[in-house]
Amino acid sequence: MDEIKVLAPATVSNVVCGFDCLGFALETPFDEMTVRRISERAIRIVHHDGFGLPTDAEQNVAGVALQALINATELDHGFEVEITKHIKPGSGIGSSAASACGAVVAANHLIGERFTKLELVELAMAGEMLASGSRHADNLAPCIYGGFTLVRSTEPLDIVEIDFPPLYATVIHPQIEIKTSEARAMLPKDVPLREAVRNWSNLGSLVAALAKGDYGLIARSMVDTIVEPVRSSLIPKFDELKAASLAAGAIGGGISGSGPSVFMLSITHETAISVERAMHAVYSETGIPFNTYVSRIGHQGVRVA
Amino acid sequence: MDEIKVLAPATVSNVVCGFDCLGFALETPFDEMTVRRISERAIRIVHHDGFGLPTDAEQNVAGVALQALINATELDHGFEVEITKHIKPGSGIGSSAASACGAVVAANHLIGERFTKLELVELAMAGEMLASGSRHADNLAPCIYGGFTLVRSTEPLDIVEIDFPPLYATVIHPQIEIKTSEARAMLPKDVPLREAVRNWSNLGSLVAALAKGDYGLIARSMVDTIVEPVRSSLIPKFDELKAASLAAGAIGGGISGSGPSVFMLSITHETAISVERAMHAVYSETGIPFNTYVSRIGHQGVRVA
Repeated sequence: MDEIKVLAPATVSNVVCGFDCLGFALETPFDEMTVRRISERAIRIVHHDGFGLPTDAEQNVAGVALQALINATELDHGFEVEITKHIKPGSGIGSSAASACGAVVAANHLIGERFTKLELVELAMAGEMLASGSRHADNLAPCIYGGFTLVRSTEPLDIVEIDFPPLYATVIHPQIEIKTSEARAMLPKDVPLREAVRNWSNLGSLVAALAKGDYGLIARSMVDTIVEPVRSSLIPKFDELKAASLAAGAIGGGISGSGPSVFMLSITHETAISVERAMHAVYSETGIPFNTYVSRIGHQGVRVA
Repeated sequence: MDEIKVLAPATVSNVVCGFDCLGFALETPFDEMTVRRISERAIRIVHHDGFGLPTDAEQNVAGVALQALINATELDHGFEVEITKHIKPGSGIGSSAASACGAVVAANHLIGERFTKLELVELAMAGEMLASGSRHADNLAPCIYGGFTLVRSTEPLDIVEIDFPPLYATVIHPQIEIKTSEARAMLPKDVPLREAVRNWSNLGSLVAALAKGDYGLIARSMVDTIVEPVRSSLIPKFDELKAASLAAGAIGGGISGSGPSVFMLSITHETAISVERAMHAVYSETGIPFNTYVSRIGHQGVRVA
């Protein structure tokens, strides 16, 4: 096999009380990536989208991730990557993670599956380092494993797959810019122990509720008094979005990653569509351009097209 | 039915990374409590042990919990409680919780099961308030539900039962005094967000690992960099106890509640016995009197004898 096409899904990280560890995969949107073997020991990037992302492999998250894979093996050849991004860079739903994960999963297929999923996340982390400047795997893990994942530790990397019941996500991407570095800088350095306890009680409960398929408990556990109150100020009409979504039947939700996207979870596809309509109604008044997505939480990560 | 005898088990709270929310029930030790209906609308406490606990109902955790139950109903009678405590007060394995829970569960049997488990924990919390001065349910919940429980919230009370695989606890109770209030006062008021994230990542992972029965992940998740480093200084030879227990095959453990007891978890009963021997070896050198217990983690909470 000299060429393979994969679909790399968007992902939602943090998931309210799971700051910096929890994430899940969507089914749509996804990036399309075709990776082919080339005889020279080099990486060539071709973009078929209008986002103006760098094609210099050292400046491109897919390129950096592939270089990490090449360095970890003794390959005598290189790769060409054609990327059609459908996940907008900067949207907060794992655009750079999709590029990095799609590239290494595709290349791994071409070299005979030498790496485990865990190792692929480790390789893709090189790409995320370029994008965010820090060692994070909370979008990479669900992008490769699918479903809900929890990153227990990044050094050493330890990823836990969390069982979950059918769930549908409605995502709104307000087209404003929030730099991950700025969203990180505004977080408190210290938090009251009391609030930390409240958060880990909710996260432990959320993990148990997902595994049990207890929707009521999932809803009660999706509470964040540490990160959301600070970061939601960056997202116009965040509180209205949330209130309207809950009124439309969503069981909970919050900021996707460091924003600006906001996600809400629903038990059925129909409710998720109602939530989308409610989000439209709120955001139409702002004058800010926006996109919305409705997707089941996907059990698959990067998949062969 | 005018009289009932129940056994109220010891419990371990906090469970390393589950500070102030996680707990589990032991099978032994347990308190024996006989509760009988008396015609006057009063509470009488009789102790058959040598701990010198108060028999004035208003100063006794079982008495206060029973009073809460009487207040919540329209009972035209009272209760007499005979208590034989085997769980030493101040040992850090839920002695006061056992008294409070045993009393209300027994009384609830006598009045035709009017209260749910959740309501019984709520009633028993009145007793814990007397003992610890704060509204805590992390020993009460496992004492009534059995198994592993997580208290998501105390106001309103929300308790989550966590699935778990076979596990054996070895507990050592060094006979020194640690006041819960002092153990609480020494905790930091604020914690670095980075450490809080590490802790909730471990707790989320521990809950998932228990539900999956993944012993390796349980072991890796039992990490606490917030409370244990501070409180372990109150327990002579804590680090040696832990190291010797892990060397003997335990998969992890830490301080039980606010101490002084220390617990270690093992996959088999044989290993838990080896851990007990290792603890004996360490503690024999201290000159401090101590007890040890080996018990399966019990699926039952307070049970009829």
